[in-house]
Amino acid sequence: MKITEYISGLRENIHLAREQGKIIVLIPTMGHLHYGHLSMVENARKDDGDREKVYIIMSIFVNPLQFGENEDFDRYPRNLVRDSRLAQEAGVDMLFVPSVQEMYPDGQSLTTINVSRISEILCGSKRPGHFQGVATIVNKLFNIVLPDIAYFGQKDYQQFIVINKMVKDLNILVQLIAFPTVREQDGLAMSSRNSYLSSEERQQAPIIYQSLREGAVLITEGETDPDVIITTIKDRISKGSKGKIEYVEVRNAHNLERFEKIEGTVVISLAVWFGSTRLIDNILLEA
Amino acid sequence: MKITEYISGLRENIHLAREQGKIIVLIPTMGHLHYGHLSMVENARKDDGDREKVYIIMSIFVNPLQFGENEDFDRYPRNLVRDSRLAQEAGVDMLFVPSVQEMYPDGQSLTTINVSRISEILCGSKRPGHFQGVATIVNKLFNIVLPDIAYFGQKDYQQFIVINKMVKDLNILVQLIAFPTVREQDGLAMSSRNSYLSSEERQQAPIIYQSLREGAVLITEGETDPDVIITTIKDRISKGSKGKIEYVEVRNAHNLERFEKIEGTVVISLAVWFGSTRLIDNILLEA
Repeated sequence: MKITEYISGLRENIHLAREQGKIIVLIPTMGHLHYGHLSMVENARKDDGDREKVYIIMSIFVNPLQFGENEDFDRYPRNLVRDSRLAQEAGVDMLFVPSVQEMYPDGQSLTTINVSRISEILCGSKRPGHFQGVATIVNKLFNIVLPDIAYFGQKDYQQFIVINKMVKDLNILVQLIAFPTVREQDGLAMSSRNSYLSSEERQQAPIIYQSLREGAVLITEGETDPDVIITTIKDRISKGSKGKIEYVEVRNAHNLERFEKIEGTVVISLAVWFGSTRLIDNILLEA
Repeated sequence: MKITEYISGLRENIHLAREQGKIIVLIPTMGHLHYGHLSMVENARKDDGDREKVYIIMSIFVNPLQFGENEDFDRYPRNLVRDSRLAQEAGVDMLFVPSVQEMYPDGQSLTTINVSRISEILCGSKRPGHFQGVATIVNKLFNIVLPDIAYFGQKDYQQFIVINKMVKDLNILVQLIAFPTVREQDGLAMSSRNSYLSSEERQQAPIIYQSLREGAVLITEGETDPDVIITTIKDRISKGSKGKIEYVEVRNAHNLERFEKIEGTVVISLAVWFGSTRLIDNILLEA
């Protein structure tokens, strides 16, 4: 595995890989790798059948542009030594670990990409500017790497929808993969932010996925009223834990619009605070 | 010369040209071609020494996203038959003439690119959203074509600066060329919008460039007060024509910031209305 901090070095290596006819795969992360990240690497390696045909680039960059002023940019966990070992073991070909200076040489980007409407709801309504920051950095990475395929975790489902819309609207030629959320044995979605949880919070946190599954079962059994689902999930979390609910929503999984009556492909999506840690999760299903 | 309305057809042809080792050149236009456009084609053809080494794509697209509600989107001159003849004669390899539907299949783009600060001044202050529309469509064209080189007219100098900043901020790998403004014999900058002018207006319009040159001479002779330059140009236009001045500005040519005291590379930039026609022009110089 190669590792570089520099866009120029990354581009050179990609150029060579492309000349060798390889398929360029990008897996953007913020580091503090867990098995959710690593299983994307494994999937990219094996999906093609021929291990040698793909060239897997993983980026690790904690992007200041997508953090709000009072959010956890400073304390976001960073451990490059551990991450590079894990990335290498998983089969990454090139690890891209730019500095903030390398990605934003002018101190700030005057240029931002906004995907209106779907950026302002759900997580976006409490994190103004967050999805602009995400869209902008992902667009930069796409322009640097020009990947054939890019992986994103389904746990950040709204992020995936925003990026997918950006890709379509801006005619970016890349195949996006929403990789299914990898979970701990008790159902908690893997996330770098789980490391913030106290042991009591960690013990209670699986209620998030349990309540999502309960909601999903109700829909599968024929419930079509979003409010019934939302209330059920909220009650379950409030009564069974100290989690403070930011939102629970039932939405059209394609465009994130609300339902009057649930039908088609559905995402149940939520954000819950345990102490000072904000956890998100979602579940996809057919109504 | 090939001609296509479709992104897929364009991409196929570019792919072939790239496989032949050609340098991909993009010249985005809104059509109604004049010698300003055509001289960019000639320049791209000859600049490389080897005519066969470049593959020149000209796009013709009147982009609704960059027109304000009360602007001239509907009456903007369109003449594809004439344009395609001129493009072919000039040496274009591929003419891309997408429909609005092809470029905005969802009716509207949720995704927009904003280059803050430099988009809101000069022409941007009277045309809110204009440079967002420009940045967004140019970004789309860049993603479709992935050009090695792209030409823009210097007449739209602020547009060039906005695109240049977008390219840097988003790590787009393209060489931008600001092609010097081509003028009529009497100095009027060539523009598709000149066709709107009545014969009286057309007779008076050269005062724009005359006044810009007068301002440039004052700076070259040592004048460092922007207000003196601005007032001189405004007086000249007001007294010598029926033109109504929208703005006259003296700015740092790199970042479009104002001067307290003129120095370095300078752009004098203006917008003047003749009847219902808005004309812009600028002049670049070293103070």
